[in-house]
Amino acid sequence: MTQITSTEENFTQLLQKYQKFVEEKLFPRDLELVTTPFFQSVPFLNELRSEAKSLGLFAPHLSKEEGGLGLDLVKFAQVSEILGQSPLGHYIFNCNAPDIGNMELLHLFGSKEQKEQFLYPLQRGEIRSCFAMTEPGHAGSNPIHMSTLAVRDGDEYVINGHKWFTTAADGAAFTIVMAVTNPNADSPYQKASMIIVPLDTAGYSNLRNIPIMGEPGEGYLSHSEVKFENCRVPASYLIGQEGQGFVLAQERLGPGRIHHCMRWIGICERVFDMMCTRAMSRELNPGKPLAEKQTIQHWIAESRASIKASRLMVMDTAQNMQLKGAKAVKEDISTIKFFVADVLMQVIDRAIQVHGALGITDDTLLSFWYRHERGARIYDGPDEVHKSSLARSILKKYSS
Amino acid sequence: MTQITSTEENFTQLLQKYQKFVEEKLFPRDLELVTTPFFQSVPFLNELRSEAKSLGLFAPHLSKEEGGLGLDLVKFAQVSEILGQSPLGHYIFNCNAPDIGNMELLHLFGSKEQKEQFLYPLQRGEIRSCFAMTEPGHAGSNPIHMSTLAVRDGDEYVINGHKWFTTAADGAAFTIVMAVTNPNADSPYQKASMIIVPLDTAGYSNLRNIPIMGEPGEGYLSHSEVKFENCRVPASYLIGQEGQGFVLAQERLGPGRIHHCMRWIGICERVFDMMCTRAMSRELNPGKPLAEKQTIQHWIAESRASIKASRLMVMDTAQNMQLKGAKAVKEDISTIKFFVADVLMQVIDRAIQVHGALGITDDTLLSFWYRHERGARIYDGPDEVHKSSLARSILKKYSS
Amino acid sequence: MTQITSTEENFTQLLQKYQKFVEEKLFPRDLELVTTPFFQSVPFLNELRSEAKSLGLFAPHLSKEEGGLGLDLVKFAQVSEILGQSPLGHYIFNCNAPDIGNMELLHLFGSKEQKEQFLYPLQRGEIRSCFAMTEPGHAGSNPIHMSTLAVRDGDEYVINGHKWFTTAADGAAFTIVMAVTNPNADSPYQKASMIIVPLDTAGYSNLRNIPIMGEPGEGYLSHSEVKFENCRVPASYLIGQEGQGFVLAQERLGPGRIHHCMRWIGICERVFDMMCTRAMSRELNPGKPLAEKQTIQHWIAESRASIKASRLMVMDTAQNMQLKGAKAVKEDISTIKFFVADVLMQVIDRAIQVHGALGITDDTLLSFWYRHERGARIYDGPDEVHKSSLARSILKKYSS
Amino acid sequence: MTQITSTEENFTQLLQKYQKFVEEKLFPRDLELVTTPFFQSVPFLNELRSEAKSLGLFAPHLSKEEGGLGLDLVKFAQVSEILGQSPLGHYIFNCNAPDIGNMELLHLFGSKEQKEQFLYPLQRGEIRSCFAMTEPGHAGSNPIHMSTLAVRDGDEYVINGHKWFTTAADGAAFTIVMAVTNPNADSPYQKASMIIVPLDTAGYSNLRNIPIMGEPGEGYLSHSEVKFENCRVPASYLIGQEGQGFVLAQERLGPGRIHHCMRWIGICERVFDMMCTRAMSRELNPGKPLAEKQTIQHWIAESRASIKASRLMVMDTAQNMQLKGAKAVKEDISTIKFFVADVLMQVIDRAIQVHGALGITDDTLLSFWYRHERGARIYDGPDEVHKSSLARSILKKYSS
Repeated sequence: MTQITSTEENFTQLLQKYQKFVEEKLFPRDLELVTTPFFQSVPFLNELRSEAKSLGLFAPHLSKEEGGLGLDLVKFAQVSEILGQSPLGHYIFNCNAPDIGNMELLHLFGSKEQKEQFLYPLQRGEIRSCFAMTEPGHAGSNPIHMSTLAVRDGDEYVINGHKWFTTAADGAAFTIVMAVTNPNADSPYQKASMIIVPLDTAGYSNLRNIPIMGEPGEGYLSHSEVKFENCRVPASYLIGQEGQGFVLAQERLGPGRIHHCMRWIGICERVFDMMCTRAMSRELNPGKPLAEKQTIQHWIAESRASIKASRLMVMDTAQNMQLKGAKAVKEDISTIKFFVADVLMQVIDRAIQVHGALGITDDTLLSFWYRHERGARIYDGPDEVHKSSLARSILKKYSS
Repeated sequence: MTQITSTEENFTQLLQKYQKFVEEKLFPRDLELVTTPFFQSVPFLNELRSEAKSLGLFAPHLSKEEGGLGLDLVKFAQVSEILGQSPLGHYIFNCNAPDIGNMELLHLFGSKEQKEQFLYPLQRGEIRSCFAMTEPGHAGSNPIHMSTLAVRDGDEYVINGHKWFTTAADGAAFTIVMAVTNPNADSPYQKASMIIVPLDTAGYSNLRNIPIMGEPGEGYLSHSEVKFENCRVPASYLIGQEGQGFVLAQERLGPGRIHHCMRWIGICERVFDMMCTRAMSRELNPGKPLAEKQTIQHWIAESRASIKASRLMVMDTAQNMQLKGAKAVKEDISTIKFFVADVLMQVIDRAIQVHGALGITDDTLLSFWYRHERGARIYDGPDEVHKSSLARSILKKYSS
Repeated sequence: MTQITSTEENFTQLLQKYQKFVEEKLFPRDLELVTTPFFQSVPFLNELRSEAKSLGLFAPHLSKEEGGLGLDLVKFAQVSEILGQSPLGHYIFNCNAPDIGNMELLHLFGSKEQKEQFLYPLQRGEIRSCFAMTEPGHAGSNPIHMSTLAVRDGDEYVINGHKWFTTAADGAAFTIVMAVTNPNADSPYQKASMIIVPLDTAGYSNLRNIPIMGEPGEGYLSHSEVKFENCRVPASYLIGQEGQGFVLAQERLGPGRIHHCMRWIGICERVFDMMCTRAMSRELNPGKPLAEKQTIQHWIAESRASIKASRLMVMDTAQNMQLKGAKAVKEDISTIKFFVADVLMQVIDRAIQVHGALGITDDTLLSFWYRHERGARIYDGPDEVHKSSLARSILKKYSS
Repeated sequence: MTQITSTEENFTQLLQKYQKFVEEKLFPRDLELVTTPFFQSVPFLNELRSEAKSLGLFAPHLSKEEGGLGLDLVKFAQVSEILGQSPLGHYIFNCNAPDIGNMELLHLFGSKEQKEQFLYPLQRGEIRSCFAMTEPGHAGSNPIHMSTLAVRDGDEYVINGHKWFTTAADGAAFTIVMAVTNPNADSPYQKASMIIVPLDTAGYSNLRNIPIMGEPGEGYLSHSEVKFENCRVPASYLIGQEGQGFVLAQERLGPGRIHHCMRWIGICERVFDMMCTRAMSRELNPGKPLAEKQTIQHWIAESRASIKASRLMVMDTAQNMQLKGAKAVKEDISTIKFFVADVLMQVIDRAIQVHGALGITDDTLLSFWYRHERGARIYDGPDEVHKSSLARSILKKYSS
């Protein structure tokens, strides 16, 4: 199971509390949770959130004034791994994507009014939010092409556009939408802005929860296709300045990728644990468990090695991001994105094979992760884009 | 798209008829079919079956006397690839697993009464059947361990046992069950027998359709967990002799693996086609399709190479099996099982990556195959077992 | 060991004769041959050539009138596999690259005088030849860039240029050189010609035998860096027409890649045999050979599968080339080039690992092939170029 | 190039000195050094050693009293990476295997007399040494099987045995030999002892320098097959106690694997640098360098990621070994052994492919490392053994 490695005693105790919560409260129920429609689970999830609050574990990423634990990036990363072991771990503690990214964004760049109206209820876990960026008509891997427009009209923006993969839109209170406000800007990176849109705004519609990998999707566990048709919001719902959309997106994505990667490592650890347990308990012949097969042993060894490599790389990146800022670790962020996504899928795949037929049923979490995390190699930039981008950055130093 | 390579003119024309049927009748509807509960689709599926019959394309594997086309293994293999391009292709033509295996078995080893009662209605497509072998309590990769018992009691067998992954049990008329009849036989391979059990027999129950990879499963598209509790059937429902279970299973599996492999190649071709289409139509920048990226090109080239290798290997095996019998190609059967299953999953995985976010939605067939065919590396013997078995067979020639 | 699969009785007997020769005459000496300077081995090699002649096995690719056996491409491919099992197999039978390519070229396109002077002595094995194409200053993967010039001056060409990887130049009687004769041609593919240069021509010099992978190289087993400085040859030494260089090169390369691929498969078979022998004889504990380890078994199974796939693909390509010509199988030629080169290196690598420390010594042929065949993924077009070229050819069919 | 990451200023300056020395003194000459017979290079190597001494950089691993720099394991590991960039880097600074292992062993376990006679001259770089363990008759991966015997006879041991892969025996002053002294010990791990044998002892003979990967081998760059025939040495040449051979070997191997892994990472960095330089300078078309190809970019990105992962894992292991001792990091040592050896071979292989034909010549260091480091996956325990051993250690925690 996930190794707790901090050398600070207090923090170590905190990590142990999270681990205990996750093991005792979530592990016995999480398979049931992911196979039940989301809205049906909400009462139970709210109970767990209350418990998390009463134990002082809620919202670890927020400052203490904001009702959180004030953990820095490096510490939160370690909590994120622990929570990642259970599919709804982050949700229980209100540090789940996309809400956490929206909180960070509004915390750093939101106006006082935006904070009052959107951030604080979000922090308290009273509402959910989403983020509308990807468009079906354009390759998500090259976000500079975007058709959604937000036109200033007096004190309002009038938004028209078509988005999809708007995670958790179903039941969310508001979205942040990326829209072109400055189509004539010099750089394609200066054309778009981020604007808050409450989801009860006229003209907004959720066309469908996109069925993904065999699941209809619902509530927090959904990815929607949404439409903005002459959707009017106050101009004051703009975050930051016009044209800052991509700059803010980078700010949002940097730590976001750390969180994701650590969550993936949490999944890896849970899956690794299942693989080892199965290898020892499944017998090919009486007294001859699968674990005696060298192929199984090598899968276990290679998985352990690559999980360890993943954790060291992500933690190294988190430390450097904390010390030197997101820009300084741009190469490292690309590196961990493709490296860990690949490890994640390999470890899940091996665990399925070790489980045999059981591994493809919905009787274990393996099926859930095999399906839900296939996207890890695609979202937040396909691995291929990150590899090319890393290489080009390295090769710049070699141009004469 | 699937290449039609026969040099016999008549047969080539037949293949073209199948290809035309599949492209015109199935491709436009197959995504809808796999996302609709099975029983709801039955009327439409029956229409297609009637059409197949009226075109003289029904049951290609059966002899003409039995209402089929009388294709030999090599020819049927080529048809199987074409049908494999659509998830319900084999079903429409009544040559789908597990029914086809049961037909072959009863055709070769069934008594006159068994044929009358079970085989002929199956051949006409009036009923469905299933095959109960794998048990949750034992590793499927080592089938000699089996707890299901059939005890002779007068003119009946009394069957007790617990099976799962009984494909298509939901709605089937009968199953063939593997059960231990001779627990004291010398060889573990001589303990089990195959017995027919009509599914309305008292004591039989379908505990559940096992949810697999996010799908509840229904009707033909289900894999059930079933129970036999003091289930009594006439002794005349025994197929062949007592103790012949494994011998018959080998007979059943040999051609079955050829069919599966060719079906997988059909999937590969359809998926390959989708990958190329997407690569040419998705633009990263205006006029710059994904297809210009060298990584995409290499995935296409490597996929083409490995699909070609797969087809040549399976057809070579089919030819040799037809000439020399199943025993002579035991090594080749193991070889194609693991080789083609691996190619299949790789091609699907690459096609998903080329489709980006769309690839993980249920808006294309990729998600269906990614999930349903993950089992290909597990069922009919995990790849690891086939590899070891092939190697041991080769190494025998090196023992001094 | 290499499987002999022809169904024609006479030809099967011929293949068995080759196999017997190779096993009895070459296997006992070939390790010694590759670790001895080439010129020192010449007397022994000549003895073997005489024996091959006296057995009627010499020059299988040549027509009977030309002193050969008149095998077609498909048959010669099978002989090539057998000869490939020993590093000097092709040499003994005078069907080794680059001589065989030069023979084919002169046979098809040489003038009567060229044949008299160059082809016939080559066919009789009295002289050796080479082929000068690659230049150190240009990427070999894009041969249209070439600096070597041949300028017509009266009845002569005056050649200036710098070439390398001119295989077997050391001791050869003549080379065929690719040189630009028509720098202003419309297409870059029409600028170059092929011209014969006897190596005693003034102005030609062998700068060095390029040391490759730890070996100085000598005689037939060398790759030279050569220079042409105002090297004058009669205009009648032009092969074909001016500007036909690339057209002829394609003619030369097509069957050449079949030969290479079959030779690689021969190496694979020999190496596979060594791997199995070692796995059975090396004990980890008394009575417990390496072969009981599942990893070793899987290497053996995967190697067998991919060697089989390779052979089927190359033979399929050879058959189609024979039936339909080289142009019709352009995609297949690219496919086998990268597929088989990859398999070759994998099989060698696994065999080394199975041999442990012995595998890296020069006490077996593994070290020779590991080093000499690393080039297989580079020469005749790097694998990456063939993959892209195959993909682009496929994708053309998808352009709207 | 190798990143210098220490945060201590003095140590950072020291690393920079090493880097400067390596770049200025070794890089310009190292290709020449590895293609010249060793003994011919000795005068030049001695010059460099003198220079290293005069700069205060000699023997970084030794304590200051012993003429070294007193670097701890973590610091020395970083130096080791820098030295690893050049094939003779460690040799110049007298911290090369096998001498460094012998120094550590004698330092920790040698008697006063042993130190005087063997250790101090070795530390001063006046003599070389070697280590005789592997035997041709037994699988090196299971060292408990050993035929070499040392029988106590009065005040002497009489040693008989046959060893190979005795690295650097050619020209060494003494070897440490592993020999069975207690054949009847309870545990196979308590049968062997380590004994010093001066190489001028009667009965010792160097049968040959084993030719490896195309090189005869000479002096320090050799691996010998040696024989001990009634070789008599004083009983006082026993290191530690009788039966402690394996215990001492573990002590020797622990830090040794850290050194090796960091050396491999140094090679990776040099090779990575060559790959990038080549990718930018080699043009496929005018102005279109290889570096624009996505495949090349991905090789660069994947290499950078895996080199980074390697360094973090090895440094993490070094830190923990330093804090908690070798036993506590047994799993980690196995992990880095197979992980880094694999990365090393992949990076070298990609760099060769990027260099095209040049990559297989001896005109760059790539050929040297491709050949010399293939052993990395074999020596110090084949990767397969380390993987199984790691897995078994992990799985112990899962046994009920």
